[in-house]
Amino acid sequence: MTDAAPLSGVVPPVCTPLTPDREVDTASLTRLVDHLLDGGVNGLFVLGSSSEAAFLPDRHRRTVLDTVLGHVAGRVPVLAGVIDMTAPRVVDHVRAAVRAGADGIVATAPFYTRTHPSEIAVHFRTIAAHADVPLYAYDLPVSVHSKLTADLLLDLAAEGVLGGLKDSSGDEAGLREVILGRRDRDLPAFSVLTGSELTVDSALWMGADGVVPGLGNVDPHGYVRLYQAAARGDWETARAEQERLFRLFRLVHVGGPHMGRGSSALGAFKAALFLRGVIDHPTTALPQIPLDDDDISQVRKYLSEAALI
Amino acid sequence: MTDAAPLSGVVPPVCTPLTPDREVDTASLTRLVDHLLDGGVNGLFVLGSSSEAAFLPDRHRRTVLDTVLGHVAGRVPVLAGVIDMTAPRVVDHVRAAVRAGADGIVATAPFYTRTHPSEIAVHFRTIAAHADVPLYAYDLPVSVHSKLTADLLLDLAAEGVLGGLKDSSGDEAGLREVILGRRDRDLPAFSVLTGSELTVDSALWMGADGVVPGLGNVDPHGYVRLYQAAARGDWETARAEQERLFRLFRLVHVGGPHMGRGSSALGAFKAALFLRGVIDHPTTALPQIPLDDDDISQVRKYLSEAALI
Amino acid sequence: MTDAAPLSGVVPPVCTPLTPDREVDTASLTRLVDHLLDGGVNGLFVLGSSSEAAFLPDRHRRTVLDTVLGHVAGRVPVLAGVIDMTAPRVVDHVRAAVRAGADGIVATAPFYTRTHPSEIAVHFRTIAAHADVPLYAYDLPVSVHSKLTADLLLDLAAEGVLGGLKDSSGDEAGLREVILGRRDRDLPAFSVLTGSELTVDSALWMGADGVVPGLGNVDPHGYVRLYQAAARGDWETARAEQERLFRLFRLVHVGGPHMGRGSSALGAFKAALFLRGVIDHPTTALPQIPLDDDDISQVRKYLSEAALI
Amino acid sequence: MTDAAPLSGVVPPVCTPLTPDREVDTASLTRLVDHLLDGGVNGLFVLGSSSEAAFLPDRHRRTVLDTVLGHVAGRVPVLAGVIDMTAPRVVDHVRAAVRAGADGIVATAPFYTRTHPSEIAVHFRTIAAHADVPLYAYDLPVSVHSKLTADLLLDLAAEGVLGGLKDSSGDEAGLREVILGRRDRDLPAFSVLTGSELTVDSALWMGADGVVPGLGNVDPHGYVRLYQAAARGDWETARAEQERLFRLFRLVHVGGPHMGRGSSALGAFKAALFLRGVIDHPTTALPQIPLDDDDISQVRKYLSEAALI
Repeated sequence: MTDAAPLSGVVPPVCTPLTPDREVDTASLTRLVDHLLDGGVNGLFVLGSSSEAAFLPDRHRRTVLDTVLGHVAGRVPVLAGVIDMTAPRVVDHVRAAVRAGADGIVATAPFYTRTHPSEIAVHFRTIAAHADVPLYAYDLPVSVHSKLTADLLLDLAAEGVLGGLKDSSGDEAGLREVILGRRDRDLPAFSVLTGSELTVDSALWMGADGVVPGLGNVDPHGYVRLYQAAARGDWETARAEQERLFRLFRLVHVGGPHMGRGSSALGAFKAALFLRGVIDHPTTALPQIPLDDDDISQVRKYLSEAALI
Repeated sequence: MTDAAPLSGVVPPVCTPLTPDREVDTASLTRLVDHLLDGGVNGLFVLGSSSEAAFLPDRHRRTVLDTVLGHVAGRVPVLAGVIDMTAPRVVDHVRAAVRAGADGIVATAPFYTRTHPSEIAVHFRTIAAHADVPLYAYDLPVSVHSKLTADLLLDLAAEGVLGGLKDSSGDEAGLREVILGRRDRDLPAFSVLTGSELTVDSALWMGADGVVPGLGNVDPHGYVRLYQAAARGDWETARAEQERLFRLFRLVHVGGPHMGRGSSALGAFKAALFLRGVIDHPTTALPQIPLDDDDISQVRKYLSEAALI
Repeated sequence: MTDAAPLSGVVPPVCTPLTPDREVDTASLTRLVDHLLDGGVNGLFVLGSSSEAAFLPDRHRRTVLDTVLGHVAGRVPVLAGVIDMTAPRVVDHVRAAVRAGADGIVATAPFYTRTHPSEIAVHFRTIAAHADVPLYAYDLPVSVHSKLTADLLLDLAAEGVLGGLKDSSGDEAGLREVILGRRDRDLPAFSVLTGSELTVDSALWMGADGVVPGLGNVDPHGYVRLYQAAARGDWETARAEQERLFRLFRLVHVGGPHMGRGSSALGAFKAALFLRGVIDHPTTALPQIPLDDDDISQVRKYLSEAALI
Repeated sequence: MTDAAPLSGVVPPVCTPLTPDREVDTASLTRLVDHLLDGGVNGLFVLGSSSEAAFLPDRHRRTVLDTVLGHVAGRVPVLAGVIDMTAPRVVDHVRAAVRAGADGIVATAPFYTRTHPSEIAVHFRTIAAHADVPLYAYDLPVSVHSKLTADLLLDLAAEGVLGGLKDSSGDEAGLREVILGRRDRDLPAFSVLTGSELTVDSALWMGADGVVPGLGNVDPHGYVRLYQAAARGDWETARAEQERLFRLFRLVHVGGPHMGRGSSALGAFKAALFLRGVIDHPTTALPQIPLDDDDISQVRKYLSEAALI
C-alpha cells in the first residue's frame, strides 16, 4: 500500500466466458476485455463472484489470469480475486495471481468455518504477508456469512495490511462509516469501492472512489458515463444514468424461482453478452441451471429496451 | 454404490496434526491413526471439518491422503473429504483422493454461492460421475448454509449417485426421515452416519448405521464401546457411555468467546491428543486463535476427570 | 416451584377451533378437550403456538382460558401460554391466566426486539414475580430467533424462577445438556418437556419428563401409548409407535409451497380434527391461507392410512 | 389513501419517557413533543420500535396515544404504530389508534409466526379494512425476519390497501426499487419514508419523501435542516448535516456488548434527552439493561461534541 491516490472509477468484475464443454473460452474473454476497455473502464477485477470464481478449478483460474493480464498488458490495473476458505488456501491463489502480474488481490473473510473478528484480522495479515501488491478486502456477507466492520477494516488499513475495500454488503450506512472513518483517521490511500451496482450515484456522493458493477459487463459505457458525470459534479446526469441501469438490472431475475439467484444473474449477464455479440456462448459453469429460451428472450427484451442491441 | 451392507460403526474424522511451523506432522498423524485403530474404530474419515480441511492447502491434503492411506493399508475403509465450493473444484479433489486410494469420498452441497435444490442435485451427480467409489453427502448447514432434505438424498440414492450420508445438521427429525425413508423406499445399502457426537445412542436407536465423532479422536475407545453396546442391544450401557462422553465434550468450550467456536473445539481436541501423548504439537492452522495455557490446563482437567490421562 | 415431582407425560398444545367467521368455537373446543382427556393425556397446554396464540386477540385468549379451565375442572393440570414480545406485555397475559386458574404458565424469550442473555434473565424474573404458579420457559428459536442455553435455564431454575422447560428448538444435544445439567446440579423438580413430536422416544430415553406434541391433537391415544410404553421400559413398542406417528406427521406438508409452513401444519391438524368429527370447522385464523379441497383430501388419506377414520 | 401529496419531511419516532417505576411519564412526553415541534418536524410517529412499543402494555399504549394526540391537536399529522404479531391482534390496536385520532397507522408484516407473501398481503388487507386512515407498511427485517418486496408493496398500493412505506430494512437498492416502481406505475400518493437515519441525504436524492429518524428525538433541528437543504436542492449542506448526525449517532454503541443493541440505542437516546433537559428520567422499559454512569458520561461527551449541551 503506497501513499498514491486510491484506485478509483469503474472496475467491472469480468465474467468468465466458457465453451459449451465448459472450458475457458479465451477468445471470448479477450473480446470481453476489449469491450470493457472500449467502454472506458478504469480497471478490471478478474476471478470475483461475477467471474464464477467459485466454479472455476485452479487451472481455469490460471487461464483467466494469463489471458486477461497478457491482453491488458498494463493499460489498466487488474485486480485478481483469490477466493478460498481460509488464509493457507488463499495464499496459493495469491502466489498464482502475483506471478501472473496482478496489480492487486481481493480476498474475503474466512468462510465455511465459523470465524471471529480476531481470526479475520490474522487471516488478512497472513494473506498480505504473501503479496507485494495491495490487498483489497471483499465484504460479501451473502456468500461469506460474516460482515466486515469499519473498525476492523480501518485498523488493518492503518497497519498497512489492507489497501482497500470492495463492499458488496449492501449496507450503505456501514459503507459510509468506512468513508467517514477513512477521513477522520487520515487514511486517504485506502480505496473504497462499492459492489452495489444499483446505488452507485449515492455511494459516490458519500465519498466512495469507484464501483465494481457486475452489470458493467453488459453495459460498461453506461457505468463509465455515470462515474464521469459524478466526477464532474453533474449529479443529475449520474442519477438518470443510474436509474436507467437500475431498470436494465432487472434482467437478473429472468431465471425465476427454478434456479439459484446467482445462476439467474450470471446466466443473464452471459446471455446479454452473447446477444450483444461479445462472447460466443452463454454457457455458465456447473452445477448452475442454465437459462432456457424463454428466459433468454426476456434478456433480449431488456437489452432492446435499453437500446443495447 | 453396491448392494453390500452399508458402512457402519465408528468412523472418526481424523484430526490433522501440524508442526509448529504449520506443516503436516506425518509422524504424529501416523500415531493418531494407530491410536484410533487401537480403539477399534470401523473406518476413518480424513479431510473433513474436524481435520481442518478448510485450512489445508492442496499439498497438505495430498500429504494427509498419502500418509493415512499408506499407513492404514486397507485395514479399515478410509473416506476422504473433498471440501470445496462447487462441483468443478470438488472434482479435482476427487481425482486426488481416488488416486491415493480412498474407499469413499465425502462432499457437501455447494457453498459460497447461493444454491438451489436442483443445483445441489446436479452438483452431486457431477461429482459422482468422476468417482468410482461411493459418494457420501455431508450435511453441515453451519458451514454450508443450506440443508439437504431427505427427499433429495433418497432420490439421489435411488439414482445411484449417493452411497450414504454424514449428517452433521443436528436435525434429528430430519435424520429419522432419512432412516425411515430408506426403509420405505428399500434402499438398504444407503449408509446413514450421524456426525452428532452427543446423541449417538439415540441416532443408533433410530436406525443410523454409525457415527463420525470429532471427539472420537480423543477417546476412540469410548465411542467404540458405545457403538458395540448399542449393536448388541445393551442400550443402558450405550447411554451411560454417551453421557460420559457428553460431559467430556464440554472441553470444546475452553477457548471461550475470544475465538471462533471451531478454533476452540479443534484446539481442545488437539490439546487433548497432545496431553495424551498421541501427537507432538497442539498447533492448529492459521488463522485460528490458539488456546492459551489456561485453556489447556482446563483441557487437562477434563481428561483427568475422564481418566484419560 | 415446589419440590414435588415435575410435570410429566403427554401434554398436548390444544388447538383453538374457530367458527367460519373466526370466533372461538367453544363447543368444538370442549369436545376437543374431551377427545384429549379420553386419549389419556397427562395435562393440557392452551394458548401455545399450535393453539394459534399469535393470531388470537386478547378476548379470544380469555375465552379459551375460561372454556378449557372451566371444562377440565382440575382433572389434569392446564398450562397457559402467555405469548407476547416482552415481560411488560407478557405480565398482562399472566394475570389473565392466573385469574382463570391456570396451573402453570409458559413464556418465550423476548422477541421482535433484539435481546441478550442478561435481558432474557430479567424478562423471566419479571414474569415469575407476577405468577404464583410455575413458569415454564418455551424455547422456540424458529419464532423467537434466539436460543435458550442450558446454563441460563438451570441458573434460573436454581433461583426458583423457572419450574420447567418446553423445548421446541429441535436441538437434541441442547436438550440433553439440560437433562444432564439438571441431574448434576440436583434440580429434580425442574420439568423438561420436549416439543419435538418426532423424536419423543429418544427424548424420553435421554431423560425428558414428557412431550408437548402438536400432532397429539390428532392422535392423543398414540402419544399416550408411546409415553406409557417408554415409562414401563418397553422401548421397542415406544419406537414403533413413534415411527407410526412420524409417518402420520407428514400430513403437515399438504399445503405445499403456496402458504406458510405454519398455515399448512395448523390447517392439517384442524382438517384432521374436523374429518375425525371432533371439531365442527377446519377454519384457521387470518391471515393464514386455508387448505383447499385437494389438500384436505390428502389429510383424509393420511388419517385413513393411520386407521384414524 | 387519497390523491393528495404523500406524507413527507421529518417524522421522528417519538420516544416514550418513563418514570423510575416504569409508568408513562406524560409530562416528559409532552415536553418531548414540544421539543420535536420546536425543531420543525413535519409529523410524529408514536408507538414505533424507537418508542419501545414492544415493551408497552396496552394501557401504556393508550396513554401515549391520548397524551400525544391531545397535545398535538392537529398541528402535524401523527402516525401510530400498531405493532403486534398478526392481523387479528393488530386490529385491536388499530381500533384504539383510530379512536384516539391518529392520522395514519403503521404495521409490520406478521412476526413470531412463519409467514408467506400471500399471507402478508392478507394481513395488510385485513388491517386496512379496519382503518379509515392511511396504512403504512413498516419494513423492519431485523425484528420481523421477513422482507417486504417492492412488488408486494406496490401491488397493495395500487389496490388502495397501503398509503405508504416506512423502510427500515437498510436495503437501499430495495428502497430505490419502490421509488422507481412508484413512478413507473404512477402511484404518486404512495409515501416513501426511510427509517435509515444515516443515509437520509441519499434516500432523498433517490426520491424518498421523508425520514423517520430515531436520532431525531435527540436532534430534531438537525434532521429538519438536512431535509430542508435537500428540498431546496442544496445537497452539499444536506450531506454535511448528515455527516454531522452520522457522527452523533455513534452514541448508540455506548452500552457495549453487555446488553442488547436495542437497549444501548434506546438507552442512549433517552440519556441524551435527559441530559438535554427534555425528559425527567432516562429510564428504559424492562427487561432492557440500563446504561450505567460511564455509559451516560459517554453520551454526554457525544452531545457536547455536537454542541447539543
